[in-house]
Amino acid sequence: MKIEEAEKAIKAILPEKRYRHSVGVSETAGMLAEQYGGDKDRAKLAGMLHDIVKYFSDDELKTMILRKPGTWGDCLDYSDKLWHAPAGAIYIEENFGIVDSDILNAVIYHTTGRKQMTLLEKIIFLADYIEPGRDFPGVDEVREAAKQDLNQAVFLELQKTITHLLSKSQSVYPKTFEAYNDLVQQLKNK
Amino acid sequence: MKIEEAEKAIKAILPEKRYRHSVGVSETAGMLAEQYGGDKDRAKLAGMLHDIVKYFSDDELKTMILRKPGTWGDCLDYSDKLWHAPAGAIYIEENFGIVDSDILNAVIYHTTGRKQMTLLEKIIFLADYIEPGRDFPGVDEVREAAKQDLNQAVFLELQKTITHLLSKSQSVYPKTFEAYNDLVQQLKNK
Repeated sequence: MKIEEAEKAIKAILPEKRYRHSVGVSETAGMLAEQYGGDKDRAKLAGMLHDIVKYFSDDELKTMILRKPGTWGDCLDYSDKLWHAPAGAIYIEENFGIVDSDILNAVIYHTTGRKQMTLLEKIIFLADYIEPGRDFPGVDEVREAAKQDLNQAVFLELQKTITHLLSKSQSVYPKTFEAYNDLVQQLKNK
Repeated sequence: MKIEEAEKAIKAILPEKRYRHSVGVSETAGMLAEQYGGDKDRAKLAGMLHDIVKYFSDDELKTMILRKPGTWGDCLDYSDKLWHAPAGAIYIEENFGIVDSDILNAVIYHTTGRKQMTLLEKIIFLADYIEPGRDFPGVDEVREAAKQDLNQAVFLELQKTITHLLSKSQSVYPKTFEAYNDLVQQLKNK
């Protein structure tokens, strides 16, 4: 799928604000890929498509995930804010014929992260957090880190995300904890 | 084992300050057991013994755990501050003939917690945090919660402990995350 086709599909399916966010993630992902030696086209495509089912109903998302629960089916036991990520991968595989597992996994794990993320997974996870339209406490610190060290930036994002969830007394998806612990180790060993 | 024998053993094996902490945990555990309908004698005994191998060397603790890795052997992949807990249970079983699995598990999980903790496990986990000798930011909030609701107090302890580890960029033992998520659910459903 070409990026222009993806952008057209996203513009048709998402409200204006979420479309602009998708373009921001796509462009940021492209820049990060260039900076860290990733595949720019695949990064831009994954970034454009990552939120494609964001406005599907919880029932629709749940039905999609239950058809293909994979290793992420347990997200149904956690916040419904997580569901659009694996469901998005199912959607783009079924509707756009995308079979590149690295792109699919980058969509699946863009909200939660997981341990042993690939370069593309890290890029999409990070781009979703720091694209220019994002504005929340701490985002500039992660943007600065992203200029220096990809792992350090992903680590900071995980640290801030989990701390935020804890401060709200909300549950944390286990793969997010695993991603955090994994980065602690990687940064210690570098 | 009688509480008087346990106290004598602890006094012989631990430095004065840690002995006083053990007495504090034992007495606090006894009070919590009384308040929440637990077995006071077992709570006092588990509290007295929980830190018994705290001053063993890392090599000694590791050797003990590797002999009986159980479900907690993975703690060796995390901070060495966790190791005295399962090793303590191994010690009191082998040296004092304590076979009560609830007491042993209360010692094993007194530092990390785990999901689905028993009443006694919660009491020891909490007593270790709030005994009168403890003095750190936030401890009074947990002490106040402990007067009202055991689960809420254990939840607060987990929330504060994980937040502290995150702020130090330290890894978090998976069972501690599981304990936190479990309490989020329990408090939501009550």
